[in-house]
Amino acid sequence: MTAEVKDFVRSDRAQDDIAALMLGLGERARVAAGVLAVTPSARKDEALAAMAAALRARSDDLLAANRRDMEAAEENGTAGAFLDRLKLDPARIEAMARGVEDIAALADPVGTVIAEWDRPNGLHIERVRTPLGVIGVVFESRPNVTADAGALCLKAGNAVILRPGSESTHSSRAIHACLVEGLESAGLPGDAIQIVPTTERAAVGEMLRGLGGTIDVIVPRGGRSLVERVQSEARVPVFAHLEGICHIYVHAPADLEMAKAIVVNAKMRRTGICGAAETLLIDTALADSHLKPLVTALLEAGCEVRGDEATLAADSRVKPAFAGDYGKEFLDAVIAVKVVDGLEAAIGHIDAYGSHHTEAIVTDDEAAAAEFFARVDSAILLHNASTQFADGGEFGMGAEIGIATGRMHARGPVGVEQLTSFKYRVRGSGQTRP
Amino acid sequence: MTAEVKDFVRSDRAQDDIAALMLGLGERARVAAGVLAVTPSARKDEALAAMAAALRARSDDLLAANRRDMEAAEENGTAGAFLDRLKLDPARIEAMARGVEDIAALADPVGTVIAEWDRPNGLHIERVRTPLGVIGVVFESRPNVTADAGALCLKAGNAVILRPGSESTHSSRAIHACLVEGLESAGLPGDAIQIVPTTERAAVGEMLRGLGGTIDVIVPRGGRSLVERVQSEARVPVFAHLEGICHIYVHAPADLEMAKAIVVNAKMRRTGICGAAETLLIDTALADSHLKPLVTALLEAGCEVRGDEATLAADSRVKPAFAGDYGKEFLDAVIAVKVVDGLEAAIGHIDAYGSHHTEAIVTDDEAAAAEFFARVDSAILLHNASTQFADGGEFGMGAEIGIATGRMHARGPVGVEQLTSFKYRVRGSGQTRP
Repeated sequence: MTAEVKDFVRSDRAQDDIAALMLGLGERARVAAGVLAVTPSARKDEALAAMAAALRARSDDLLAANRRDMEAAEENGTAGAFLDRLKLDPARIEAMARGVEDIAALADPVGTVIAEWDRPNGLHIERVRTPLGVIGVVFESRPNVTADAGALCLKAGNAVILRPGSESTHSSRAIHACLVEGLESAGLPGDAIQIVPTTERAAVGEMLRGLGGTIDVIVPRGGRSLVERVQSEARVPVFAHLEGICHIYVHAPADLEMAKAIVVNAKMRRTGICGAAETLLIDTALADSHLKPLVTALLEAGCEVRGDEATLAADSRVKPAFAGDYGKEFLDAVIAVKVVDGLEAAIGHIDAYGSHHTEAIVTDDEAAAAEFFARVDSAILLHNASTQFADGGEFGMGAEIGIATGRMHARGPVGVEQLTSFKYRVRGSGQTRP
Repeated sequence: MTAEVKDFVRSDRAQDDIAALMLGLGERARVAAGVLAVTPSARKDEALAAMAAALRARSDDLLAANRRDMEAAEENGTAGAFLDRLKLDPARIEAMARGVEDIAALADPVGTVIAEWDRPNGLHIERVRTPLGVIGVVFESRPNVTADAGALCLKAGNAVILRPGSESTHSSRAIHACLVEGLESAGLPGDAIQIVPTTERAAVGEMLRGLGGTIDVIVPRGGRSLVERVQSEARVPVFAHLEGICHIYVHAPADLEMAKAIVVNAKMRRTGICGAAETLLIDTALADSHLKPLVTALLEAGCEVRGDEATLAADSRVKPAFAGDYGKEFLDAVIAVKVVDGLEAAIGHIDAYGSHHTEAIVTDDEAAAAEFFARVDSAILLHNASTQFADGGEFGMGAEIGIATGRMHARGPVGVEQLTSFKYRVRGSGQTRP
């Protein structure tokens, strides 16, 4: 960008231009949403199949576009983990295409009658699923989100406006071209899946304000700072979670081998996902029998353990936990461990430090598990299972666009069903209200 | 209020005080919500029964408090309709007490398993209803909303913060005292139903900002200007509708007598409710046969008819409809009538002028009704029935806190079930994720 262009994009004129540009996207999305709302399942699935085919057929274009993004990122001295997220290769393109096909194979939620009943006056009432409308997806470096989010929104009959991270612009645009090819080959409007044609950050601000009422919901996909900005600025509903500060509480009596397997899996299977455990709470009654073996199992799995006094005493490799370690989303091979005085204290700790995402209890005490289920206010609660099951696929819901911790509408995994709304259809034979 | 006090309440100091006051309400509500979330149904119903008893026992107090509000309103020269909404009498108090008992008789939605399924790995997943948490209700002159909203929120296990209109302060506070008496007599925290102790408008602003994350949803109950303010300022989800611009479309072939009965009922049964019809659309194919009889029936029922050229020609008493009459919520004995060229034009008109609340089609053509149901994007659609059925009671959902036109979570009548959220309970036997 030349200095002249940079001045321009900072000017009011450019802001107005971006607002107008984005409003245009919103209006076209709204028109496309009207078409999608009455598009039969078979037509949507035909488009999805054609998208997958286009992703495979155009894989050379995708790789070339990705190379431009990778080179730019390398020039900027971007770190390795970021480059790995950004990178496309033939295997990842194939996985993306298969992901789109998997979404095609899901049941179409639109038109499903969720509930129906008759009234004494003969009215028959149905509550039926409808698309949500227009969804805005704001994401970061992973270009595959373009295909995942586009396909999932289409399956639920929604138009979508995608705003990829500026680092993955070329890759995302090349993927987007395949999606549009799929839509158009099935006779659906290309505007059903649009990509923001500018990398200016002001475009995101416009989306968060709802593009003149055309966007129904915003889904941020990315790190904490992105989600935080979206949650604080958005004037439309947001499906997201800010953090996954997941707890495991081991309550007496508990099978030690089961506890070890669950704790190590919950923390270490993948440390960077939102369902990874961040804090281990151990009942005082198990301090003698379970604390040391659990800590040792974690340490031997390569996990750094930060603990309270009792945990420090269990193994010399344990580091002291500072106050900030409880309630921290490490997203790494680090766990905070604390001995708590029973169920009440565990629930109190989770209430104080949790993020309402996912928590697990490991115990043979059914009553304690029931109490934990009733009183812990998180989207997902597990008994004797790993927190890493917090995932739409693992729930059997198929692909998900993310996990939400809000209390409205979508909570837990946000799959195709959560991307719908509903309306009432009432059939009468001339009824008037007395 | 003295000039000195008026200066004070306008000062920054007072604003800070109101913010702190309101935050305290939010925090106490959150604590109460934690108790209510695990309160058994029987205990909540016991509290509701005690509330009804207290309303009856304290009816003299309620009437005396109401007299103060009425006198103040009369001194301010308030209009008759407003005074009628504000007024309490023994019959209205009895109706309020019975309303609370009716809510007690509803099924408790909390704890209901909405869906459950097993995974191949043996995990058993349940989606179970939970309370939403803390609900803020902002209302205007009708003091009975205090009891209705308080009881409905309690039934669904939610804490509620009520902010009555300043004109009904004394009445609402007296009713609120009965609700607290009922709560406490059942051993529930009085903070489960709180009333804002100041009439300062700044308190509403604090609620709309969510009281430090303690309020989960805001429900405005009142006229357009209140709802508009709430929808534009709220930083938390809002369950509401701004307008009920309900349409009736009569499509050929249609039984004339049925159409007359439905149209007159939809417009004239009660003209001031949100489900009252505001615009009548008539298919060109029925212009010769149905237009004149429908217009005559409306005129004879005492309705002012504003019409297009064809409608004007049908009866000399018809007044010309100006552009603004279509899409206007008259909330009065006035209707706008227009002849439209078939289903497509009717849907286009509703799309352009409607408010996504409630629309009806009157026709014997099942395919046209199905098309209308599929394509009109409103919360409630009716075939051969009056729009005045847009009501939680008429839907068989029991009492409602209002009608929502949002696309998220609550849509259509907002009854006890819509005042809930859900969480997942997952039961395993040691499963870890591969």
